[in-house]
This record gives sequence, C-alpha cells and structure tokens, in this order.
Amino acid sequence: MSSLVRIALDVMGGDHGPQVVLPGAEIALTRHPDIRYLLFGNEAKIREILAGRPRLAAASEIIHTDVVVEMDDKPSQALRRGRKVSSMWRAIDAVRLKEADCAVSAGNTGALMAMAKVNLKTMAGIGRPAIACLWPTRRGDSVVLDVGASIGASAQHLIDMAVMGAAMARIVFDIERPTVGLLNVGVEEIKGVEEVKEAGAALREADHPGIDYRGFVEGDDIGKGVVDVVVTEGFSGNIALKTAEGTARQVADYLRDAINRSWINKLGYLLARGAFRALREKLDPRRSNGGVFLGLNGVVIKSHGGTDAEGFASAVDIGYDMVRYQLLSRIEANISERPRASGGDAPAAAESVSSDDLQVQS
Amino acid sequence: MSSLVRIALDVMGGDHGPQVVLPGAEIALTRHPDIRYLLFGNEAKIREILAGRPRLAAASEIIHTDVVVEMDDKPSQALRRGRKVSSMWRAIDAVRLKEADCAVSAGNTGALMAMAKVNLKTMAGIGRPAIACLWPTRRGDSVVLDVGASIGASAQHLIDMAVMGAAMARIVFDIERPTVGLLNVGVEEIKGVEEVKEAGAALREADHPGIDYRGFVEGDDIGKGVVDVVVTEGFSGNIALKTAEGTARQVADYLRDAINRSWINKLGYLLARGAFRALREKLDPRRSNGGVFLGLNGVVIKSHGGTDAEGFASAVDIGYDMVRYQLLSRIEANISERPRASGGDAPAAAESVSSDDLQVQS
Repeated sequence: MSSLVRIALDVMGGDHGPQVVLPGAEIALTRHPDIRYLLFGNEAKIREILAGRPRLAAASEIIHTDVVVEMDDKPSQALRRGRKVSSMWRAIDAVRLKEADCAVSAGNTGALMAMAKVNLKTMAGIGRPAIACLWPTRRGDSVVLDVGASIGASAQHLIDMAVMGAAMARIVFDIERPTVGLLNVGVEEIKGVEEVKEAGAALREADHPGIDYRGFVEGDDIGKGVVDVVVTEGFSGNIALKTAEGTARQVADYLRDAINRSWINKLGYLLARGAFRALREKLDPRRSNGGVFLGLNGVVIKSHGGTDAEGFASAVDIGYDMVRYQLLSRIEANISERPRASGGDAPAAAESVSSDDLQVQS
Repeated sequence: MSSLVRIALDVMGGDHGPQVVLPGAEIALTRHPDIRYLLFGNEAKIREILAGRPRLAAASEIIHTDVVVEMDDKPSQALRRGRKVSSMWRAIDAVRLKEADCAVSAGNTGALMAMAKVNLKTMAGIGRPAIACLWPTRRGDSVVLDVGASIGASAQHLIDMAVMGAAMARIVFDIERPTVGLLNVGVEEIKGVEEVKEAGAALREADHPGIDYRGFVEGDDIGKGVVDVVVTEGFSGNIALKTAEGTARQVADYLRDAINRSWINKLGYLLARGAFRALREKLDPRRSNGGVFLGLNGVVIKSHGGTDAEGFASAVDIGYDMVRYQLLSRIEANISERPRASGGDAPAAAESVSSDDLQVQS
C-alpha cells in the first residue's frame, strides 16, 4: 500500500449515480486528505460535476466507461453485459490490478458481489465471501455478518466469518481480541442448527488469539451490543438487519404520530427538540452506511443505493479505514490460526455466480 | 364447543407461576365472562390466591398436580419427568380429552411444544406445527410465523404455514382473504432459497380462496404491515422477532438518554408526556403477548415466561378468540384447498421430539 489511499469509485452506481457519488467522495476527502480517487464512469457527466469541485478534481483521475450496471440487473445479466466494460467492473478491476486499494460502489449488491467474486476471487483458505455491516448498538457499534452474500452456512463458513469479522472489528473498534457471538434461536448449547452448534464448539475449543468467543446470542442481543461481532448466515442476517431498520423507523413514526396529536405535545417537542435531534442522529442510517465484502483478495465496499452524499461518504470512510489499517493482512493472520470444522465447506453450488439464482440481495 | 370457553391453565408455568397466572386469568375473565378455567397446579398455592378472588374462584376448577416443568428443562427432560403428571402436560391433556377448548402456559416453549406435539399430534395433512405471533405494525397487527417451533422449512411446510396463518388472521382481523407474504431476502422472484421460491410459485398458482398471496416481503416490510400474514421458517422468524423487540427497546433507551441530558429536554418531556405514554402503549410487549401453536389437534397458547398479569391476560384473550372463532375448523377448511409442493415435506428427523436436539426456543 502506498502512503496514499487509492479508492476506485463506481461513479455510475446507485439510484443517483454521479450526483451523489461525487459530492460524497468530496466529503470523505475533506476528512481524509490522503485519499486519491479513480473515477469510473461517464467522463462528460463526471467533468461537469468536477468543474465546480476543484479540490475533488485535483485528487481524482477519470477513467471513462460506457456501460452502467442497472439496479435491477440480475447478477448473471450484469456479468454478461458489464464484464470488463462497466464502471462497476472496472472499479473492482482497479483493485485486482493494484491500481486502487479498494473499490466503493452504490450499485446493485448482487452484481457487485458477483463481479467481485469473479474478478478478485476468494482469499486462500476462505470458501465464500460475506458482507459485514456496522450495526448501531447501545454500547456503540457491532460488526454483523453475513447480511446477504449467500444463504446458508456450513460450520466452517461460520468459523471463517468469525475470523473475518473479528479482523474487521479489530480495525473499527481498535481492540486486540474482539468478542464474537454466533446468532442462534436460544442461548442454551442444545438449541439451533447443527452447523451453528458445530461452529460454536470449534470456536470455544480453539480459543483463537484474535477471537474472544462468547457463545450464542439471540436477536435482541445484537442491539444491546452484547458482543463486538455477531456471526450468522446471510438469510437470517439480512432479515435481522432489515427488520431492525424497519423497527427503528416504525418507532420513530409512532413517536411522530403521537406528538402531532396535540398542541401541548408539540410544544413539548419544541422544548425537547435537542433530544429528538440526538435521537435522529443515533438512528441516522447514513452513519453506518457501507457493507464490507469480506473474504476476497481486495477490499470492496457496498454503499446503500438510495443514500445521499453524506451516506456515500460514510461508505468511503469505511473503505479508507479497511485499507489504512490493513484488513486483508489481519484476516490472513487470523485465518492461519483458525479452527477447522469437521464438516468442511458448504456445497459448491451455493457459490455459483453465473446462474440467475445467485443468492445475494441487491 | 360448549357455549362457554373452557381454558386449561398451566398455573405453575412461567417465571412467576400462580402469582402472575391467576391474576392474569382474572383480568381476562372480566373481559370474557364466558370463560371457565381448569387450573392445573399446586392446589394449596392456588387456593391461597383464589381466596382473595371470589369471582375467579367461582369460574375455576382446581386440579392438583405435583410436578412442575422448569424453565430450563430440556424438552426431552420435561417429557421424561413431566409426562402425565406435570401441570403443563395435564393442561394440554385436558384439551385432548375435550375437557378444555384450549390450554395456556407461560412455561418453557420447548417443553410445551414437545408435550403438545406428543399429546395432541399434528392435524391431518399438516407435517409440522408452527408458532404464530401478533406483530405490531404501522397498519395494526400482522400474524408472523414460524417464530420458533422448528428450524428450516420445506416448500410444503411454508405453504401449510400460509394456510394456517391465514386462518388465524381471518379470526384476528376479521377479514375473509388475508394478504400473505413469504419472508425473503429480496422482493425479486429470482432471489432466496429454493423452498421459498417453490412455495411462492405454488401459492401464486393456486390462487387459494382463503389466501391473497402477495409475493415476497423483506424484513423491513413486516413493521410496515405490508401483508396480514408473514411466513418464514422458525430460525429466521425467531431472529426477526427478537431483533425487532431489541430494536424497539434500543430506540426507547436512546430517547430516554437524550431526554435526560438536559432540564429543558425534561421539561419538554413533561409537556409531551401524553405522546410518550401513547408510544409506550404502542410498544408494550404485553399487548401482543401470546404465541399460538398452529397445526395441532387443539389450541395451545404460549405466554412469555416473564410477563405480568396484564401480559398473561393477553395470552388468555388470544386463546379465547381462537376458540370462539373456531381456529381449527378454519384451518381444516383452508387445508383442503391448499396447493401441494412437488418436494413434499421436510425430513422426519426435524420433527423428533424425543431427542435433546428438539429445535424449539424456550
């Protein structure tokens, strides 16, 4: 890694493309002046926006691309149409070519994961990648994975996710030995699926130097911040994440309805508006925007497609941190000491990226 | 069914046993004077509490039992120790013997489900039971199942849950053809696990007279109340439920913290306290207490173990409604017209109740 952090941006990705990606990149640049951008996308559109942003322009190089991966492209479609020529592919390819240290895209998750897998390949010893997110908790944030890279997980994949999630947590929280829990439907050892039980037994047994394994956690433990890293397979992880987002919005809606019901409530709201502002900030999904693809030979960050510049900047920030604090070598160090499950990896079918059935969220 | 609703109570179940169950039963009785109780538990303790509650006493018959299923008993342990002799078993047995129309217990879920399965058996045509709950949404409540009866689900089990959940929703929401969605990690047909896709295709194709099938829903759609019935397998359902509970608590905690940070916020809070009270009521987990066991030859309701009398009364209320509005015959009517999945049922192993691995939450 050079002393600068070189970030490849899929400028055309997301619901708003350059209108959000470039202002977001500029916000992140003010926080990290040592970023240099490779901007992949429509050159004319990019130049137009950069014209009013000399600071961003000075830190950026534009690489024109013609093809845009659409938000509703199936992964297989995106690969067929966008391989080698789309802004998304080219941003990832810059990572493979070591021209960039990481890639950030607000494009369709399924396509981004498919391209990242095909192009960067999984790290030696890792069967399947995972997507990790930062989850706001009562104690700060936690790392939660997998939130949608693949469905189902063998015991070994759960162990690998514990290893990778702990490496990420070391960076984000600056702690030597993050606490790790496996998401399950009960805290008693007898419960849950075989794979989760087997992974739990192996992690407990191994007493890994980089993982303080704390056993099973349940859905309500995530928000309490009971552990630094919560590991689960991608179906339940994605459902948990979206359910939490939905519930937070629902509670905020209830509160607004209740306040709007009388003028005295509204007056109270005006007086306490500092508190409501603090609450809004706590719940701001832009703060924790940025899914980290773990297990690939390169750092790829997925931003929410519908976020604004502030949210996109958060995704760039997290990519910056993962590069600056050497995510990949930390994962490698953790892998070498990880336990092995007896069952081995999940069937290869679940990893196929060329079928329309690719099991990733978008 | 007699014109009275006869409810068998496991008086010893839950964290507080008779201290909560009996006062809760009395609250429900004031709302439904046509309830008659069979009280299974320690006669001396029950009599002591009934002494001060003549109205409840007049509506109740006490059946003494010596054995109590503990909250941390494994299902197999509970069956070994408690079969035929525990308050939990006897309450369920009263349903089998048609001495009661439903059983309500705040005891350990795993034990209750195991006993209910062994004693009542699954309904003809239904492979496995499920636990359904009422989930508060922006539009009112929705029925969500399975929230923890078993892990994993074949396409047929998902279809059967749609049938059973719709029957329950007809009662609870008084609508002819409830809307039903399958929980998935994306709304596009291409995504998700095979079983969910197959069940979705069969439900769409069948156009069942009792089910308005609306396709896939995601985690954040539950709280929006996008459909009346959300169907998923028990691992993700349990995680979604607990994650939502945890998130609601977390947001409420944030708000309290924010308000306590300054006196002006506190003053605002005092003025708007009506709004906060309304919010608290909306989020009150006691309101929606009561998991309904679906798919058995009898109605069994599981109350939260740690709830108070008000919460236990909600569980009795829901049992009352399920009996009064004929849940079982509605499910039977729905089953006869349900679609069949090509794959058939899940392996029988997942249904074993005699092993320590019984996959249910407690």
